[in-house]
Amino acid sequence: MKAELMEIGIKAKEAAGKMALLETNKKNEVLNCVAKNLIKDAKTLIAENAKDMEAGKANGMPEGLLDRLLLTEKRIEQMAEGLEQVAALDDPIGEVLSMKKRPNGLRIGQKRVPLGVVGIIYEARPNVTADAFGLCFKTGNAVILKGGSDALHSNIAIVASIRRTLAECGVDENAIALIEDTSRETTTEFMKMNGYVDVLIPRGGAGLIRAVVENATVPVIETGTGNCHIYVDESADLDMAVNIIFNAKTQRIGVCNACESLVVHENIKDALLPKLAERLKEKNVEMRGDKASQEACSDIIPASDEDWGKEYLDYILSIKTVKSTAEAITHIKRYNTGHSEAIITENYTNAEKFLDEVDAAAVYVNASTRFTDGFEFGFGAEIGISTQKLHARGPMGLEALTSTKYIIYGNGQIRP
Amino acid sequence: MKAELMEIGIKAKEAAGKMALLETNKKNEVLNCVAKNLIKDAKTLIAENAKDMEAGKANGMPEGLLDRLLLTEKRIEQMAEGLEQVAALDDPIGEVLSMKKRPNGLRIGQKRVPLGVVGIIYEARPNVTADAFGLCFKTGNAVILKGGSDALHSNIAIVASIRRTLAECGVDENAIALIEDTSRETTTEFMKMNGYVDVLIPRGGAGLIRAVVENATVPVIETGTGNCHIYVDESADLDMAVNIIFNAKTQRIGVCNACESLVVHENIKDALLPKLAERLKEKNVEMRGDKASQEACSDIIPASDEDWGKEYLDYILSIKTVKSTAEAITHIKRYNTGHSEAIITENYTNAEKFLDEVDAAAVYVNASTRFTDGFEFGFGAEIGISTQKLHARGPMGLEALTSTKYIIYGNGQIRP
Repeated sequence: MKAELMEIGIKAKEAAGKMALLETNKKNEVLNCVAKNLIKDAKTLIAENAKDMEAGKANGMPEGLLDRLLLTEKRIEQMAEGLEQVAALDDPIGEVLSMKKRPNGLRIGQKRVPLGVVGIIYEARPNVTADAFGLCFKTGNAVILKGGSDALHSNIAIVASIRRTLAECGVDENAIALIEDTSRETTTEFMKMNGYVDVLIPRGGAGLIRAVVENATVPVIETGTGNCHIYVDESADLDMAVNIIFNAKTQRIGVCNACESLVVHENIKDALLPKLAERLKEKNVEMRGDKASQEACSDIIPASDEDWGKEYLDYILSIKTVKSTAEAITHIKRYNTGHSEAIITENYTNAEKFLDEVDAAAVYVNASTRFTDGFEFGFGAEIGISTQKLHARGPMGLEALTSTKYIIYGNGQIRP
Repeated sequence: MKAELMEIGIKAKEAAGKMALLETNKKNEVLNCVAKNLIKDAKTLIAENAKDMEAGKANGMPEGLLDRLLLTEKRIEQMAEGLEQVAALDDPIGEVLSMKKRPNGLRIGQKRVPLGVVGIIYEARPNVTADAFGLCFKTGNAVILKGGSDALHSNIAIVASIRRTLAECGVDENAIALIEDTSRETTTEFMKMNGYVDVLIPRGGAGLIRAVVENATVPVIETGTGNCHIYVDESADLDMAVNIIFNAKTQRIGVCNACESLVVHENIKDALLPKLAERLKEKNVEMRGDKASQEACSDIIPASDEDWGKEYLDYILSIKTVKSTAEAITHIKRYNTGHSEAIITENYTNAEKFLDEVDAAAVYVNASTRFTDGFEFGFGAEIGISTQKLHARGPMGLEALTSTKYIIYGNGQIRP
């Protein structure tokens, strides 16, 4: 391993040991100070960000990415507010989840503890730098960040501001570290820092996540892409269906919990699809469907087989007609990415069948898939949305950044 | 991926979908039938096992491993009993962990569901074949097994018996599959079956576990080695200390929760160590210690620096003297493997400090480390002991083989 990386790892591990023992009051005080100082340092942050923006423009970075990269005074204020909100949340660390007494008198409890060192690999979004720090710090973890090279100046400035505040508050500044060498080689080494890094969370597009899953030997929490479906059952309230589909498809298109594919019971396709097409026209949504759906609505253009597996992240919706809830579930099972799936129905049995049989992080009856989100679920924070089944599944709040340890109180017990 | 492996993966995934929906009564009935039929098939199993035993002897397999490989009528009965015990446990699947109502009226609950397809990689212990099946089946998972080549005939026979019973009970026999090609190449491919296998659990020695952690792209639950310490504080009840150390060191030496290293406060070393040496002589335990410990007891031979990090799995104990609980914790932090650590003390503050600051799956006050075990913890079963921090930490019972999904009941909610 490269010496710089090793050094970051050793220091982060040492800092993690101290973070685990910080009292909640102290952690909250520090988070509020970090927030204040980020606003104080706004001019420096914006100046450093300007270098990234300039380079981005020179390299032909697309408009959308430039916008994500940009720091303004308002955005820095939002970063600070995010940290203050995290300070206001309950601290999960130290809670004992249960304490049971065994027949031999041993008392065994399960105590919530930090994970240790959390590694975050992300793209050119400088706000993630402060967000990830806030969530990891509140849960007593140290964090090592590897941001995109396009945001390097911005990230260095943000991390420097945070480290300065930590030192001012008398806390080990190595609770946050940034890997400044953004080469692929170093990034791959970072993914193999077993013994130094306890978990890696990639945040970004499908390519980034795949690269982390394929290369990491450190445990990864996969956050993921969403090919989310809405199935409209024959018993559905059609106005409700149109409302929910419109919301899930168009409220925000570039997100993982947006609806990408509609599945429709053939008995209501003639009643639903023209009505839906009318509504989706407000946002110029392109509808690509199978034959049966095209017969029901002339606005629908033919879908190819490739459409069923696509996460468009665009004003496009694929449409598949089915003969039953069972067929809908089979279709969804084949093409979904384990993110968010919804049924619109008034039928009790079909609702429960869908909830039971569809295998995804979040399964809805009569609601928009757009609710799959840590804030909407009431966690007060979100480090990402897990689409894997281990450790955390669905929106991840503070608890997803914790582990447990068994604490056992005895009075001399030995094993017979 | 090899065609055979792919086929196993596809079939297991399909079977997992069905297993997830089996009612508890049916699962229990099947487990009891599998148990009965294993006993019925005992002659065949023993005959096939004899082939493995013969080859093992011819290849010079050590006595201890030969013993682990051996199947007898009694051992087959124990395998069957294990399955019946699992049948008698509560089924965790389907439980809704909480159901909260959000301000917009959405009701959001977290439901326990199977992981899907569990992969187990293990060595030449045929009893693991039936054990792992039982735990995975009870939790609605399909299981793909990759056992050691030395036990191949035994494993094929056990899996064939189980699959026959599944078919007889009208259940998809692909709920269990054995990878018969035990080549390294195929094993490595098995570790990369993302999309088919949801989690890999290696069961075996340190080399096997390291190979899985380093090669797998599928999420791994690391079960681990234990360099377990007992720290005897100056306030300890010395008779209790001797009893606990004797138990933790000698009750069974080849296991991960055995004590490998003793840490002693210098103020009680003279009182404790000769007493302990006397007791450990019953089992001819070799004591390797630092200078200060040697001064306290002439039976102690010098330890080298390598000793502190060693998991002996033998009648050997390393001994380190310290000046304080803080120094003991620092020593343990440096050398422990995150398994089980104990303090023997009558001092409240030191007990709580040790519980707080030692980072391990199980931390004890005044009890033997040998209790770190799914049965001793009251889980009624154990698939292994996790020494990692993600998903499961410490002894893993049925719940460790489950995931959750959010189920959301709405009445038309859309995201504003």
